[in-house]
Amino acid sequence: MRAAAEQARIDALLVSCVEDVRYLCGFTGEDSFLLVGRSWAALVTDGRYIEQARRECGDIEVRARADSLVKATAELAKRHKVKRLGVQAENMTLLMRDRLRSELKGGATVSIRDAAASHREVKDADEIKAIRRAIRVAERAFKRLVARGAKGMVGRCERDVAAELDYLMRLEGAGAAAFETIVAAGAHASLPHYRPGATRIRPGQAVLIDWGARVDGYCSDLTRVVFTGTIPRKLAEIHAAVLRAQRAAVGAIRPGATCRKVDAVAREAISRAGYADKFLHGLGHGIGLAVHEGPALAAGCERRLRSGMVLTVEPGIYVPGVGGIRIEDDVLVTGRGRQMLSTLPRALKAMTLT
Amino acid sequence: MRAAAEQARIDALLVSCVEDVRYLCGFTGEDSFLLVGRSWAALVTDGRYIEQARRECGDIEVRARADSLVKATAELAKRHKVKRLGVQAENMTLLMRDRLRSELKGGATVSIRDAAASHREVKDADEIKAIRRAIRVAERAFKRLVARGAKGMVGRCERDVAAELDYLMRLEGAGAAAFETIVAAGAHASLPHYRPGATRIRPGQAVLIDWGARVDGYCSDLTRVVFTGTIPRKLAEIHAAVLRAQRAAVGAIRPGATCRKVDAVAREAISRAGYADKFLHGLGHGIGLAVHEGPALAAGCERRLRSGMVLTVEPGIYVPGVGGIRIEDDVLVTGRGRQMLSTLPRALKAMTLT
Repeated sequence: MRAAAEQARIDALLVSCVEDVRYLCGFTGEDSFLLVGRSWAALVTDGRYIEQARRECGDIEVRARADSLVKATAELAKRHKVKRLGVQAENMTLLMRDRLRSELKGGATVSIRDAAASHREVKDADEIKAIRRAIRVAERAFKRLVARGAKGMVGRCERDVAAELDYLMRLEGAGAAAFETIVAAGAHASLPHYRPGATRIRPGQAVLIDWGARVDGYCSDLTRVVFTGTIPRKLAEIHAAVLRAQRAAVGAIRPGATCRKVDAVAREAISRAGYADKFLHGLGHGIGLAVHEGPALAAGCERRLRSGMVLTVEPGIYVPGVGGIRIEDDVLVTGRGRQMLSTLPRALKAMTLT
Repeated sequence: MRAAAEQARIDALLVSCVEDVRYLCGFTGEDSFLLVGRSWAALVTDGRYIEQARRECGDIEVRARADSLVKATAELAKRHKVKRLGVQAENMTLLMRDRLRSELKGGATVSIRDAAASHREVKDADEIKAIRRAIRVAERAFKRLVARGAKGMVGRCERDVAAELDYLMRLEGAGAAAFETIVAAGAHASLPHYRPGATRIRPGQAVLIDWGARVDGYCSDLTRVVFTGTIPRKLAEIHAAVLRAQRAAVGAIRPGATCRKVDAVAREAISRAGYADKFLHGLGHGIGLAVHEGPALAAGCERRLRSGMVLTVEPGIYVPGVGGIRIEDDVLVTGRGRQMLSTLPRALKAMTLT
């Protein structure tokens, strides 16, 4: 990062993205900025976070803001003789940039793209542990949710099932759900981003559940379709096609493989089953401090996988009026290939509630 | 808004803030931009939202993006011959503005402050109804949470109590909690922004609970302190002082009163009780589609209240090592004065769980 800063001829980078702040200095609070200079770094936060910041951030400088965050940041930059201050293009608003400029007086701001996000893509051992914990919490909650079988599901509305799963994740140790949980019964599952509603789950239905936990800041992201009784033949066939596609794609994950290629492997398997036009989204994405990070496992992405990346692999087939099947697991790219981090069964039989 | 646009000599305003989009055209989805021209308006969204947008937005133009949202927005602006496009300063990132500019070719972007937010401060009858619903949901959930008395609270950890309250709000009809629920036992309550942890609630403790529901997009925001047994005398005294301050401040709310003045009324009451330096934050804030909106009931705010504003009134006294008391209700500014929208009892006795 400092090399990139030198190239951009900036004296310091203002890190304003909350995940990047946490990644770079370990601080878990909010409403704080990190300044990274060539041989120094400083966190600007407010009074209520000072003790926490000193505990979490080791030996970097921690400053309490007296007035606004922007003002305190500009003052700190001036004290460190910053003439050109880099700001994060993806994150800095026009208003905040204008305020910074006027506080910096003579100094300039320079918009920098991808100052930190791509550094987060390869996870270290502690991060992988945290993601594993987030997966375990999500899986334990799911097992409790389906433990009562079909009778624990039938007759309840999608919204209440989603609320219960979120509650179970928190009882299992999640700080929060990693994103808005999807519970889509029957034909609703043909909409990849369905929002759960008042519809009651019926016997003999497929129910798509897409959920994840945030634990110690790190996210998991999983999808299963459970069946409340006998599975319609059409859906069983689709389920088999999606599972084949997922297995093939996971098998194609290894360091050096392009994201485009892994996506294509899943897409080809789904094409062979006759559903080429029913796989409506990319195959997956990185997970970490954000639930959607780089790289994207998608058609347009020529980037190559690296050991330590953690990705979702989530092929799906969506048939309007009928329903949808998506199977999503979280996969670590290892030195030689890949390791499935999530462990819930995927077979049709295991997902049939009795 | 169109008058302000004319003054800024822009041909259209790009509304990118999700609450503003909802407010202006009724669309409840995400990842969409609204363009407001002098005599036209258009929503740019993606395929999955098209039907919903046509249903929710009446007769404005709805466009599906083929590629990126920015590209589709720029194309629409060009088709409407927009030369100068206003963008929301508080919301537009440098990256998105740069992309817009390069797509607009000859066109310019103009950064506009407060293009929409202050229009949202005065609520109409439907909005007030929605806020009332959000308050009812939060209150019903709270009543269920405390229904089992002290024995339903003692021995449980703060985090689990917060998770249950969130779950109860969703069962009562909330789409989500309006913000991260605070449950702070004993001395933890002296930190106004405490995050609930693994600490177990003990008998004879004060437990501060700050929670709110989001219903149909609108938010409520409430705080009560419940007591699990005999109340320490010091806290009873503080509770009385906070309640006096809240009553006085609510009584000062009327159209035309300055925000500064209402805040001062509460601050004076707390000063008279001897806790001037223990009231660590502003008195309140507007609520609506966002849980924190204008105006701020705070020392620096010279703005005047208007009929139809809905505000939190939440004085607090925080004593390190002892604890904190905050009492928060939601109040509507009416034509002649004010109306309390929230209805939970505030008296010490009513908040003592047996």
